[in-house]
Amino acid sequence: MTTQPEQQQSVPRITVLAGGVGAARFLVGLLRVVDPSQVTVVVNTADDTVFHGLHVSPDIDTVVYTTAGAIDPERGWGLANESWRAMEALGRYGDAGAVTWFNLGDRDLATHLWRTGRLRDGASLTEVTAELAAAWGLTYRLLPVTNDPLATFVTTELGELPFQEYFVRHRHGIAVSAVRFAGAEFARPTNEVISAIESADQIIVAPSNPIVSIGPLLAVDGIRDSLMANRDRVVAISPIIAGAALKGPADRMLVELGMEASVVGVAKLYEPIVGTLIIDTADEASADLVRAAGVKVIVTDTIMSQPGVGDSLARHALGM
Amino acid sequence: MTTQPEQQQSVPRITVLAGGVGAARFLVGLLRVVDPSQVTVVVNTADDTVFHGLHVSPDIDTVVYTTAGAIDPERGWGLANESWRAMEALGRYGDAGAVTWFNLGDRDLATHLWRTGRLRDGASLTEVTAELAAAWGLTYRLLPVTNDPLATFVTTELGELPFQEYFVRHRHGIAVSAVRFAGAEFARPTNEVISAIESADQIIVAPSNPIVSIGPLLAVDGIRDSLMANRDRVVAISPIIAGAALKGPADRMLVELGMEASVVGVAKLYEPIVGTLIIDTADEASADLVRAAGVKVIVTDTIMSQPGVGDSLARHALGM
Repeated sequence: MTTQPEQQQSVPRITVLAGGVGAARFLVGLLRVVDPSQVTVVVNTADDTVFHGLHVSPDIDTVVYTTAGAIDPERGWGLANESWRAMEALGRYGDAGAVTWFNLGDRDLATHLWRTGRLRDGASLTEVTAELAAAWGLTYRLLPVTNDPLATFVTTELGELPFQEYFVRHRHGIAVSAVRFAGAEFARPTNEVISAIESADQIIVAPSNPIVSIGPLLAVDGIRDSLMANRDRVVAISPIIAGAALKGPADRMLVELGMEASVVGVAKLYEPIVGTLIIDTADEASADLVRAAGVKVIVTDTIMSQPGVGDSLARHALGM
Repeated sequence: MTTQPEQQQSVPRITVLAGGVGAARFLVGLLRVVDPSQVTVVVNTADDTVFHGLHVSPDIDTVVYTTAGAIDPERGWGLANESWRAMEALGRYGDAGAVTWFNLGDRDLATHLWRTGRLRDGASLTEVTAELAAAWGLTYRLLPVTNDPLATFVTTELGELPFQEYFVRHRHGIAVSAVRFAGAEFARPTNEVISAIESADQIIVAPSNPIVSIGPLLAVDGIRDSLMANRDRVVAISPIIAGAALKGPADRMLVELGMEASVVGVAKLYEPIVGTLIIDTADEASADLVRAAGVKVIVTDTIMSQPGVGDSLARHALGM
């Protein structure tokens, strides 16, 4: 750490590695306790897929809609005050091959229509995502982890499935025996992403699924190495609380893939890249085991549905 | 003409060459006076375009929605009981490059989403169009003129424009000095289209814009020749009545391109491929001039907004 006065006066730069819902909720708190211009969010794109020819970026959109205050609070995805006229009309074509199991609201469709048009025009996903954030009035920096194709596939009893088929069509109700990030061997992180990690004063791994939300970020060449080199400045928030995920299949997936669905399992998984793990007060008894895994521990409230917890959690993550 | 009994008993086969609104209205009458299974409709695809990555087929959809009784009767395009939530939401991205001048209703979007998905899956436009007709309960046969790319461009004072930019964005309010069908030199008609023309007992050129709706059909290799070879069985309905088009720019376009905006101009344009022209009673005085152009004439009411005129016009076109 430098002690030169001119650098002490500069505001700290914060980079967050993010998946979808959990990360987005954390960001709402973070953006209340720091100036948004200090924050860069690097988002998973391995959930991205093409439906009906439209490029859909579920995690990017969840982060944008949530931090813009436009998310549907009950569903946790998609826009509030949404309508489903297009999806209802799509039912007419169900017997003729229409994909009817992935719901795209009418207002949400506009985002996918516009993004698809921009990508066809030759814009990069990084450019389009910056424009998306600006269109929603967001003033933090939002970066897709890569502009290159990256797609999560999971092996199940039904064979290997694209992530959204597992997650949405089968409501993540089937066991996963393997996870693969197609394209990871060719995907390069953008310069902006590497720079955001290397120049950050604080790197935060949001409370997202460590396997299918954070995992793809780590699979992109250079990101794991960059985090390892900056491990002391990396703090992660455990998405597992008292052995369970608040939402989604992270807990089951950890067990299915031979790990522990506990803060200790998360600590062991993250140990090479994370210096400090924030665990919920419900897991206080496991703090020593986390330390034994080689990771420092902060114990605090992490369930953000309680008022004030998001802000407090963000302050803990920043060492404030 | 054969006089063998078994062929006399077979019902006549009717093939209609069609553009959008005018053709669709004519078809409603035709499908009331004959069994739909007798009818094949060959539709212009040179208005097709890609918006936001979605394959939009304006003429095919106008024909489907109209003959299914689902068209918005006031606009003449798109679905009745439509909503515009996606388009309204697209406005947010207007400054970021979204195409906001081409309106796609929420229910209509389902058609484009499904069609785009099917084409991406490898289905041909002919297959997708047959599925579309079936999904709307239509029992006549609907054929795109070609499965190959075909796109109308018009030269204007603003330069050469894709057809929908001219037609929708500029509301066909600028003069056209040239028309080009990009792809026509490579586009092949489908076997189904050539067979539908050659095997037809009666071929009807619907009251569509002769230049940009029927013109692209004639530009596809083999179709003009096939019509010339079967000219005696081809009857066209003039889209020009008393010097004007009921809708759209056909009258202005004829003049701008050096032809006459009259039934005589239509007769001269169609003479190589059309044996008989149906003109409106308002043009009765021009009947001799049409005959002088080498085309037989039928004079009858053709303005289909009047009750019963569509059916009567169809009967005239069939020589009933």
